Amino acid sequence: MLYQFTVPQFIKMLSNLNAILDKAEVFAAAKKIDAEVLLQSRLAPDQFNFIRQVQIACDTAKLAASRLTGKEAPTHADTEKTLPELKARIASTITYLEKFTAQDFAESATRHISQPRWEGQYLTGEEFAQHHALPNLYFHITTAYSILRHNGVEVGKKDYLGKMPFKK
Amino acid sequence: MLYQFTVPQFIKMLSNLNAILDKAEVFAAAKKIDAEVLLQSRLAPDQFNFIRQVQIACDTAKLAASRLTGKEAPTHADTEKTLPELKARIASTITYLEKFTAQDFAESATRHISQPRWEGQYLTGEEFAQHHALPNLYFHITTAYSILRHNGVEVGKKDYLGKMPFKK
Repeated sequence: MLYQFTVPQFIKMLSNLNAILDKAEVFAAAKKIDAEVLLQSRLAPDQFNFIRQVQIACDTAKLAASRLTGKEAPTHADTEKTLPELKARIASTITYLEKFTAQDFAESATRHISQPRWEGQYLTGEEFAQHHALPNLYFHITTAYSILRHNGVEVGKKDYLGKMPFKK
Repeated sequence: MLYQFTVPQFIKMLSNLNAILDKAEVFAAAKKIDAEVLLQSRLAPDQFNFIRQVQIACDTAKLAASRLTGKEAPTHADTEKTLPELKARIASTITYLEKFTAQDFAESATRHISQPRWEGQYLTGEEFAQHHALPNLYFHITTAYSILRHNGVEVGKKDYLGKMPFKK
Protein backbone atom coordinates (compact mmCIF):
# COMPACT_ATOMS: atom_id res chain seq x y z
CA MET A 1 0.00 0.00 0.00
CA LEU A 2 2.98 2.35 0.53
CA TYR A 3 3.64 2.13 -3.20
CA GLN A 4 -0.03 2.88 -4.00
CA PHE A 5 -0.05 5.99 -1.81
CA THR A 6 3.12 7.34 -3.42
CA VAL A 7 4.29 6.48 -6.95
CA PRO A 8 0.94 6.25 -8.80
CA GLN A 9 -0.30 9.37 -7.00
CA PHE A 10 2.93 11.25 -7.74
CA ILE A 11 2.59 10.36 -11.41
CA LYS A 12 -1.05 11.41 -11.43
CA MET A 13 -0.45 14.72 -9.64
CA LEU A 14 2.53 15.62 -11.85
CA SER A 15 0.40 14.80 -14.91
CA ASN A 16 -2.31 17.09 -13.54
CA LEU A 17 0.34 19.78 -12.99
CA ASN A 18 1.48 19.32 -16.58
CA ALA A 19 -2.09 19.91 -17.80
CA ILE A 20 -2.27 23.02 -15.60
CA LEU A 21 0.89 24.29 -17.34
CA ASP A 22 -0.89 23.82 -20.66
CA LYS A 23 -3.68 26.05 -19.37
CA ALA A 24 -1.09 28.65 -18.35
CA GLU A 25 0.32 28.57 -21.87
CA VAL A 26 -3.12 29.08 -23.43
CA PHE A 27 -3.83 31.91 -20.99
CA ALA A 28 -0.55 33.68 -21.77
CA ALA A 29 -1.16 33.40 -25.50
CA ALA A 30 -4.74 34.70 -25.18
CA LYS A 31 -3.64 37.64 -23.04
CA LYS A 32 -0.65 38.24 -25.32
CA ILE A 33 1.69 38.19 -22.35
CA ASP A 34 5.02 36.44 -22.00
CA ALA A 35 4.50 33.18 -20.10
CA GLU A 36 7.61 34.08 -18.12
CA VAL A 37 5.54 36.59 -16.17
CA LEU A 38 3.56 33.67 -14.76
CA LEU A 39 6.66 31.54 -14.22
CA GLN A 40 8.31 34.26 -12.17
CA SER A 41 5.20 34.94 -10.08
CA ARG A 42 4.79 34.19 -6.40
CA LEU A 43 2.16 34.88 -3.73
CA ALA A 44 4.51 36.57 -1.26
CA PRO A 45 7.84 38.34 -1.80
CA ASP A 46 9.80 35.75 0.20
CA GLN A 47 8.09 32.73 -1.36
CA PHE A 48 9.63 30.56 -4.09
CA ASN A 49 8.35 31.50 -7.53
CA PHE A 50 6.27 29.26 -9.79
CA ILE A 51 9.29 27.66 -11.48
CA ARG A 52 10.79 26.68 -8.14
CA GLN A 53 7.47 25.26 -6.91
CA VAL A 54 7.35 22.95 -9.93
CA GLN A 55 10.99 21.95 -9.50
CA ILE A 56 10.45 21.11 -5.83
CA ALA A 57 7.26 19.16 -6.60
CA CYS A 58 9.26 17.09 -9.10
CA ASP A 59 12.13 16.56 -6.67
CA THR A 60 9.82 15.67 -3.81
CA ALA A 61 8.34 12.86 -5.91
CA LYS A 62 11.67 11.74 -7.35
CA LEU A 63 13.56 11.71 -4.07
CA ALA A 64 10.72 10.07 -2.15
CA ALA A 65 10.67 7.13 -4.57
CA SER A 66 14.46 6.98 -4.51
CA ARG A 67 14.77 7.12 -0.71
CA LEU A 68 11.94 4.68 -0.08
CA THR A 69 13.51 2.05 -2.32
CA GLY A 70 17.23 2.81 -2.13
CA LYS A 71 17.37 3.30 -5.91
CA GLU A 72 19.49 6.05 -7.44
CA ALA A 73 17.64 9.17 -8.65
CA PRO A 74 18.62 11.16 -11.73
CA THR A 75 19.97 14.65 -11.01
CA HIS A 76 18.35 17.77 -12.42
CA ALA A 77 20.24 21.08 -12.64
CA ASP A 78 17.25 23.34 -11.82
CA THR A 79 17.95 25.53 -14.84
CA GLU A 80 14.41 25.59 -16.28
CA LYS A 81 13.34 29.05 -17.45
CA THR A 82 10.50 28.37 -19.90
CA LEU A 83 7.22 26.48 -19.94
CA PRO A 84 8.53 23.81 -22.36
CA GLU A 85 11.55 23.29 -20.09
CA LEU A 86 9.29 22.90 -17.05
CA LYS A 87 7.13 20.43 -18.94
CA ALA A 88 10.25 18.46 -19.87
CA ARG A 89 11.27 18.41 -16.20
CA ILE A 90 7.88 16.99 -15.25
CA ALA A 91 8.06 14.43 -18.07
CA SER A 92 11.54 13.33 -17.01
CA THR A 93 10.35 12.87 -13.43
CA ILE A 94 7.32 10.85 -14.54
CA THR A 95 9.54 8.64 -16.72
CA TYR A 96 11.70 7.91 -13.68
CA LEU A 97 8.69 7.18 -11.47
CA GLU A 98 7.13 4.85 -14.02
CA LYS A 99 10.03 2.42 -13.61
CA PHE A 100 8.99 1.56 -10.05
CA THR A 101 6.76 -1.36 -9.15
CA ALA A 102 5.00 -2.29 -5.92
CA GLN A 103 7.68 -4.97 -5.50
CA ASP A 104 10.35 -2.27 -5.18
CA PHE A 105 8.52 -1.06 -2.07
CA ALA A 106 8.41 -4.42 -0.28
CA GLU A 107 10.88 -3.25 2.41
CA SER A 108 10.08 0.47 2.27
CA ALA A 109 7.77 0.82 5.28
CA THR A 110 10.51 0.02 7.79
CA ARG A 111 13.50 1.44 5.88
CA HIS A 112 15.32 4.24 7.72
CA ILE A 113 15.12 7.46 5.73
CA SER A 114 17.31 10.45 6.41
CA GLN A 115 18.41 13.68 4.78
CA PRO A 116 21.59 15.73 5.37
CA ARG A 117 19.65 18.51 7.11
CA TRP A 118 18.16 16.03 9.62
CA GLU A 119 21.56 15.72 11.31
CA GLY A 120 21.62 11.97 11.70
CA GLN A 121 17.97 11.60 12.68
CA TYR A 122 15.68 9.39 10.63
CA LEU A 123 12.08 8.49 9.93
CA THR A 124 10.81 5.06 8.96
CA GLY A 125 9.72 4.81 5.35
CA GLU A 126 6.08 4.81 6.35
CA GLU A 127 6.53 7.91 8.52
CA PHE A 128 8.54 9.61 5.78
CA ALA A 129 5.74 9.06 3.26
CA GLN A 130 3.02 10.19 5.67
CA HIS A 131 4.69 13.15 7.39
CA HIS A 132 7.01 14.40 4.69
CA ALA A 133 6.68 13.20 1.10
CA LEU A 134 2.92 13.41 0.63
CA PRO A 135 2.29 16.70 2.49
CA ASN A 136 5.21 18.29 0.59
CA LEU A 137 4.12 17.04 -2.80
CA TYR A 138 0.56 18.25 -2.40
CA PHE A 139 1.81 21.53 -0.89
CA HIS A 140 4.02 22.47 -3.85
CA ILE A 141 1.50 21.42 -6.49
CA THR A 142 -1.27 23.36 -4.73
CA THR A 143 1.01 26.39 -4.39
CA ALA A 144 1.96 26.28 -8.08
CA TYR A 145 -1.76 26.02 -8.91
CA SER A 146 -2.58 28.91 -6.57
CA ILE A 147 0.03 31.19 -8.15
CA LEU A 148 -1.61 30.67 -11.55
CA ARG A 149 -5.15 30.98 -10.15
CA HIS A 150 -4.20 34.22 -8.42
CA ASN A 151 -2.93 35.55 -11.76
CA GLY A 152 -6.16 34.77 -13.56
CA VAL A 153 -5.46 31.42 -15.20
CA GLU A 154 -8.77 29.55 -15.28
CA VAL A 155 -7.91 26.50 -13.23
CA GLY A 156 -10.26 24.80 -10.80
CA LYS A 157 -9.96 22.02 -8.27
CA LYS A 158 -10.82 19.43 -10.92
CA ASP A 159 -7.59 20.34 -12.72
CA TYR A 160 -5.70 19.73 -9.49
CA LEU A 161 -7.46 16.49 -8.57
CA GLY A 162 -7.58 14.98 -12.03
CA LYS A 163 -9.76 12.01 -12.92
CA MET A 164 -11.21 9.70 -10.31
CA PRO A 165 -11.10 5.93 -11.04
CA PHE A 166 -14.89 5.69 -10.64
CA LYS A 167 -16.63 2.33 -10.87
CA LYS A 168 -20.29 1.54 -11.44
CA MET B 1 -1.95 1.42 6.97
CA LEU B 2 -5.06 3.16 5.58
CA TYR B 3 -5.77 4.44 9.09
CA GLN B 4 -2.18 5.68 9.45
CA PHE B 5 -2.32 7.62 6.19
CA THR B 6 -5.58 9.30 7.15
CA VAL B 7 -6.76 9.87 10.74
CA PRO B 8 -3.42 10.64 12.48
CA GLN B 9 -2.36 12.83 9.55
CA PHE B 10 -5.71 14.63 9.50
CA ILE B 11 -5.37 15.35 13.22
CA LYS B 12 -1.80 16.55 12.75
CA MET B 13 -2.60 18.78 9.78
CA LEU B 14 -5.66 20.30 11.47
CA SER B 15 -3.53 20.96 14.56
CA ASN B 16 -0.96 22.67 12.34
CA LEU B 17 -3.77 24.71 10.79
CA ASN B 18 -4.93 25.69 14.26
CA ALA B 19 -1.42 26.95 15.08
CA ILE B 20 -1.42 28.90 11.81
CA LEU B 21 -4.68 30.54 12.92
CA ASP B 22 -2.92 31.60 16.11
CA LYS B 23 -0.26 33.29 13.97
CA ALA B 24 -3.00 35.07 12.03
CA GLU B 25 -4.46 36.33 15.30
CA VAL B 26 -1.09 37.67 16.46
CA PHE B 27 -0.54 39.29 13.07
CA ALA B 28 -3.94 41.00 13.09
CA ALA B 29 -3.35 42.31 16.62
CA ALA B 30 0.14 43.62 15.74
CA LYS B 31 -1.14 45.33 12.59
CA LYS B 32 -4.20 46.60 14.48
CA ILE B 33 -6.50 45.19 11.83
CA ASP B 34 -9.70 43.24 12.26
CA ALA B 35 -8.93 39.53 11.86
CA GLU B 36 -12.06 39.33 9.74
CA VAL B 37 -10.12 40.99 6.91
CA LEU B 38 -7.95 37.87 6.78
CA LEU B 39 -10.88 35.50 7.20
CA GLN B 40 -12.69 37.05 4.24
CA SER B 41 -9.60 37.02 2.01
CA ARG B 42 -9.08 34.87 -1.05
CA LEU B 43 -6.47 34.57 -3.81
CA ALA B 44 -8.91 34.95 -6.72
CA PRO B 45 -12.35 36.56 -6.89
CA ASP B 46 -14.07 33.25 -7.66
CA GLN B 47 -12.21 31.25 -5.02
CA PHE B 48 -13.63 30.29 -1.62
CA ASN B 49 -12.46 32.62 1.13
CA PHE B 50 -10.27 31.65 4.08
CA ILE B 51 -13.22 30.69 6.32
CA ARG B 52 -14.59 28.32 3.68
CA GLN B 53 -11.15 26.76 3.10
CA VAL B 54 -10.94 25.90 6.81
CA GLN B 55 -14.50 24.57 6.87
CA ILE B 56 -13.84 22.34 3.85
CA ALA B 57 -10.55 21.09 5.30
CA CYS B 58 -12.44 20.09 8.45
CA ASP B 59 -15.24 18.43 6.50
CA THR B 60 -12.83 16.59 4.22
CA ALA B 61 -11.20 15.00 7.27
CA LYS B 62 -14.46 14.34 9.08
CA LEU B 63 -16.30 12.85 6.11
CA ALA B 64 -13.35 10.76 5.00
CA ALA B 65 -13.13 9.08 8.41
CA SER B 66 -16.90 8.67 8.46
CA ARG B 67 -17.17 7.23 4.95
CA LEU B 68 -14.18 4.93 5.31
CA THR B 69 -15.61 3.36 8.45
CA GLY B 70 -19.37 3.74 8.02
CA LYS B 71 -19.59 5.70 11.28
CA GLU B 72 -21.89 8.68 11.58
CA ALA B 73 -20.27 12.13 11.40
CA PRO B 74 -21.44 15.15 13.40
CA THR B 75 -23.00 17.93 11.36
CA HIS B 76 -21.61 21.47 11.34
CA ALA B 77 -23.71 24.44 10.21
CA ASP B 78 -20.86 26.36 8.50
CA THR B 79 -21.75 29.54 10.37
CA GLU B 80 -18.25 30.42 11.62
CA LYS B 81 -17.43 34.11 11.26
CA THR B 82 -14.58 34.68 13.73
CA LEU B 83 -11.19 33.19 14.50
CA PRO B 84 -12.35 31.66 17.80
CA GLU B 85 -15.29 30.07 15.99
CA LEU B 86 -12.97 28.61 13.35
CA LYS B 87 -10.67 27.27 16.05
CA ALA B 88 -13.68 25.66 17.74
CA ARG B 89 -14.65 24.05 14.44
CA ILE B 90 -11.15 22.59 14.10
CA ALA B 91 -11.20 21.40 17.72
CA SER B 92 -14.58 19.75 17.25
CA THR B 93 -13.32 17.95 14.16
CA ILE B 94 -10.18 16.75 15.94
CA THR B 95 -12.28 15.48 18.87
CA TYR B 96 -14.34 13.44 16.42
CA LEU B 97 -11.25 12.06 14.65
CA GLU B 98 -9.58 11.07 17.90
CA LYS B 99 -12.31 8.51 18.57
CA PHE B 100 -11.17 6.35 15.65
CA THR B 101 -8.75 3.47 15.97
CA ALA B 102 -6.88 1.41 13.39
CA GLN B 103 -9.38 -1.38 14.13
CA ASP B 104 -12.22 0.78 12.79
CA PHE B 105 -10.43 0.74 9.42
CA ALA B 106 -10.08 -3.05 9.16
CA GLU B 107 -12.56 -3.24 6.26
CA SER B 108 -12.02 0.26 4.85
CA ALA B 109 -9.70 -0.48 1.92
CA THR B 110 -12.34 -2.44 -0.01
CA ARG B 111 -15.43 -0.56 1.20
CA HIS B 112 -17.42 1.12 -1.58
CA ILE B 113 -17.45 4.90 -1.09
CA SER B 114 -19.82 7.21 -2.89
CA GLN B 115 -21.16 10.75 -2.71
CA PRO B 116 -24.46 12.13 -4.04
CA ARG B 117 -22.69 14.09 -6.78
CA TRP B 118 -21.00 10.91 -8.09
CA GLU B 119 -24.36 9.73 -9.47
CA GLY B 120 -24.16 6.14 -8.29
CA GLN B 121 -20.48 5.64 -9.08
CA TYR B 122 -18.07 4.63 -6.34
CA LEU B 123 -14.43 4.33 -5.37
CA THR B 124 -12.96 1.66 -3.12
CA GLY B 125 -11.90 3.00 0.27
CA GLU B 126 -8.24 2.82 -0.70
CA GLU B 127 -8.87 4.73 -3.93
CA PHE B 128 -11.03 7.26 -2.10
CA ALA B 129 -8.22 7.98 0.38
CA GLN B 130 -5.56 8.20 -2.30
CA HIS B 131 -7.40 10.07 -5.07
CA HIS B 132 -9.83 12.18 -3.07
CA ALA B 133 -9.46 12.56 0.69
CA LEU B 134 -5.72 13.19 0.97
CA PRO B 135 -5.30 15.46 -2.07
CA ASN B 136 -8.33 17.48 -0.95
CA LEU B 137 -7.22 17.80 2.66
CA TYR B 138 -3.73 19.00 1.73
CA PHE B 139 -5.18 21.27 -0.96
CA HIS B 140 -7.48 23.18 1.39
CA ILE B 141 -4.94 23.47 4.19
CA THR B 142 -2.28 24.71 1.75
CA THR B 143 -4.76 27.17 0.24
CA ALA B 144 -5.75 28.52 3.68
CA TYR B 145 -2.03 28.85 4.49
CA SER B 146 -1.37 30.60 1.15
CA ILE B 147 -4.16 33.15 1.71
CA LEU B 148 -2.53 34.16 5.00
CA ARG B 149 0.99 34.13 3.54
CA HIS B 150 -0.14 36.30 0.65
CA ASN B 151 -1.54 38.79 3.17
CA GLY B 152 1.70 39.03 5.09
CA VAL B 153 1.21 36.59 7.96
CA GLU B 154 4.64 35.15 8.74
CA VAL B 155 4.02 31.47 8.14
CA GLY B 156 6.51 29.09 6.56
CA LYS B 157 6.43 25.51 5.40
CA LYS B 158 7.42 24.30 8.86
CA ASP B 159 4.11 25.65 10.18
CA TYR B 160 2.31 23.65 7.51
CA LEU B 161 4.29 20.43 7.98
CA GLY B 162 4.48 20.48 11.77
CA LYS B 163 6.83 18.28 13.74
CA MET B 164 8.44 15.19 12.29
CA PRO B 165 8.56 12.05 14.49
CA PHE B 166 12.36 11.91 14.19
CA LYS B 167 14.29 9.03 15.72
CA LYS B 168 18.00 8.77 16.52
